[in-house]
Amino acid sequence: MHTHRPHVLIIGGGFAGLNAAKALRRAPVRVTLVDRRNHHLFQPLLYQVATAGLSAPDIAAPIRQILAHQDNATVLLGEVTHIDADAREVTVDGESRLSYDYLVVAAGAVNHWFGNDDWAQHAPGLKSLDDALDIRRRILLAFEAAEREQDAVARREWLDFVIIGAGPTGVELAGSIVDIAQKTLARNFRNFDAADTRVTLIEGAGRVLPAYPEKLSAQAQAQLEHLGVTVLTGARVTDISERGVALKDGTTLTARTVLWGAGVKASPLLETLRTTERDRGGRAKVSADLSLPDHPEVFVVGDAAHVAQEDGTPVPGVAPAAMQMGTHAAGAIMRRMRGQAPEPFRYADKGSMATIGRKKAVADFGRVTFQGLTAWLLWMGVHVLFLIGFRNRLAVMMEWAYAYLAYHRSARVILASDRALPAIEEDDPIPLRREGSA
Amino acid sequence: MHTHRPHVLIIGGGFAGLNAAKALRRAPVRVTLVDRRNHHLFQPLLYQVATAGLSAPDIAAPIRQILAHQDNATVLLGEVTHIDADAREVTVDGESRLSYDYLVVAAGAVNHWFGNDDWAQHAPGLKSLDDALDIRRRILLAFEAAEREQDAVARREWLDFVIIGAGPTGVELAGSIVDIAQKTLARNFRNFDAADTRVTLIEGAGRVLPAYPEKLSAQAQAQLEHLGVTVLTGARVTDISERGVALKDGTTLTARTVLWGAGVKASPLLETLRTTERDRGGRAKVSADLSLPDHPEVFVVGDAAHVAQEDGTPVPGVAPAAMQMGTHAAGAIMRRMRGQAPEPFRYADKGSMATIGRKKAVADFGRVTFQGLTAWLLWMGVHVLFLIGFRNRLAVMMEWAYAYLAYHRSARVILASDRALPAIEEDDPIPLRREGSA
Repeated sequence: MHTHRPHVLIIGGGFAGLNAAKALRRAPVRVTLVDRRNHHLFQPLLYQVATAGLSAPDIAAPIRQILAHQDNATVLLGEVTHIDADAREVTVDGESRLSYDYLVVAAGAVNHWFGNDDWAQHAPGLKSLDDALDIRRRILLAFEAAEREQDAVARREWLDFVIIGAGPTGVELAGSIVDIAQKTLARNFRNFDAADTRVTLIEGAGRVLPAYPEKLSAQAQAQLEHLGVTVLTGARVTDISERGVALKDGTTLTARTVLWGAGVKASPLLETLRTTERDRGGRAKVSADLSLPDHPEVFVVGDAAHVAQEDGTPVPGVAPAAMQMGTHAAGAIMRRMRGQAPEPFRYADKGSMATIGRKKAVADFGRVTFQGLTAWLLWMGVHVLFLIGFRNRLAVMMEWAYAYLAYHRSARVILASDRALPAIEEDDPIPLRREGSA
Repeated sequence: MHTHRPHVLIIGGGFAGLNAAKALRRAPVRVTLVDRRNHHLFQPLLYQVATAGLSAPDIAAPIRQILAHQDNATVLLGEVTHIDADAREVTVDGESRLSYDYLVVAAGAVNHWFGNDDWAQHAPGLKSLDDALDIRRRILLAFEAAEREQDAVARREWLDFVIIGAGPTGVELAGSIVDIAQKTLARNFRNFDAADTRVTLIEGAGRVLPAYPEKLSAQAQAQLEHLGVTVLTGARVTDISERGVALKDGTTLTARTVLWGAGVKASPLLETLRTTERDRGGRAKVSADLSLPDHPEVFVVGDAAHVAQEDGTPVPGVAPAAMQMGTHAAGAIMRRMRGQAPEPFRYADKGSMATIGRKKAVADFGRVTFQGLTAWLLWMGVHVLFLIGFRNRLAVMMEWAYAYLAYHRSARVILASDRALPAIEEDDPIPLRREGSA
């Protein structure tokens, strides 16, 4: 019965791909969703996993569970490594081929170090759960190293954190690390006071959260500085090593832990669409209905797509935009099948929010903006609301309630670790100075 | 003020080491606890992490958080690689040295393949969180591979699971995998029915749970078989490969996923105590007060210790015994400091329990035994009660309540994966057969 139904192949189970699949649930098509991970990831809360506030499974749901009751959908675990748009087929894991009638490319974005790929090892980015667990490990191990280090200068380097890029991810990481240092780790160490931790946030643009209204940028910077974060704007990074960061003005910042929030680019899979025009970030320039100009059966959605708005700016790479694009592409396929004319995609901007720390956030709803506690409560509500799956929602709410009351972070677990720690000094093996007694 | 206090060095933050540290909280000593992990692990629930029921952080608590308010205790992250009992010092990470006045060796046990170390890669054991995440990945990836596999014979191999060793860990893994297959994954696949999964449990002794009373072994086996597990007792494994298991009687069992629950031995660190007599499992034979006969200032506790009971059998390697030993060693140190005579350790056996599946378990309290729902409720209550930390207790209870109601498992996340999956067949790319329609 299925064999004459058109085959819609969706690459990626993020917000865009998943919404495309769901929107096709009653369409007379066969849907195959291919993802190289088995889980849909709630990326807006990834920084919480990186900063030990949430467990990895709290923000991940198995894609095939989400689509379990959608009978026209099949989920396959695998990485699409090539798209042959002329032959209408894709290659999975470099070996298998899947053909399609309609293709929805929702392959998302990857970390991007602007051509300095050697920076990746010293300044990891935050796009996947594995990234988040790596960053968590680095943050927690830095404090462990400081406890072992008897040399005061060397210890200082373990307590210095630099975050590059003051978009929402960088701002959220900076606020969380301060919170860990000042609250969560209080009284945990004998060799230093965790409150002596220093966090520096570096931004190339002239202000933090450059995509937000200027008023919110100023409020966010004031909130960050109130927390104790050093904010450097208009600062260009010229080098990153395991010891720290060099800036264009000649400044060097010594820090053992450097995190990257400065940029992403579209998945390299887009490069295999050879005839497609792409922007600087590697995103495919799509037609108004999100299809490719020379391949109307191929749609690119989410962070992999460059969609020009009426004012000339591209649709931002945020979750609500990805969800709307996924749904639109599904609708476009159904219109195409019915012989109807395509409709242009219009991004409905519901506003944007960034959290900065406990009870601190900024929210931009166009005409109205919020900051401080109100923005933070809005941020909490919206993010819990959109978490996929009842269980995750409840679990995350409970974690947050508990973390708020007790300042604890429930996921302070270092898994496999390969970072070299300082030697313990033979002549003074046991640190005796307690926090607060120095 | 501290410098003249005796230094008690504790190796290991498991049940034994942590209880030794806590029992010394009012003693006039300096305590240093060294562990190669930053977390105390609630090992009795490790199989729940391995079978996607719980998140890793749910059963782990940072050691330094547990001891944060114990001012006489310092926690160091590091691996003790050598003990020099004559010099009264240990080596950390192969380079640093720490001296002590009293040493408590609570280094625990490691997986043990009885001299067949090449089996480790095909049949992983379950002792750490990393082990648990590896097993979780293998179980979940086996089903993903089956969905991609078009050859019916090859697919069968992905749906066959063999567990070697029918102690509590093996029994718990077998029951959980059946539960995953029959309930959690229902309707998740299009290419096969997950309920067709086969689980075989192999035990070298004549019955499952050989350390339990015979009546409970029989009940446990009946419960396992009722769930659909094939139980082979008196079966000796002679070879394990990535394709399956060979038995001494010539039988071969084809299975892509083989798990090892057949044995552990004491930490290899014990081998560096060269003058100490050890048993077959590598455990140090200690005096009645848990100290070493030739080094009364060194105590060995928990799974690393061989403690003979009055009836000649050794104290079992279970959490309550480890906790009691840790507390006893701390008391023995305090008695020694006060010039009091040593007291012998006596294991207070509170009974033992093993869970088999939803609403199925066995419990042995000496004169009284339970099975079925009663034993399962007892098992749940006791395990939640002993979980360290309020937050973990609440989180785990919630996960269980939800899992029980919805049959879901909340941690179905595959992190970094390197297992090769079957190619997708070109001529029949989309599996169309749905579960239940075969």
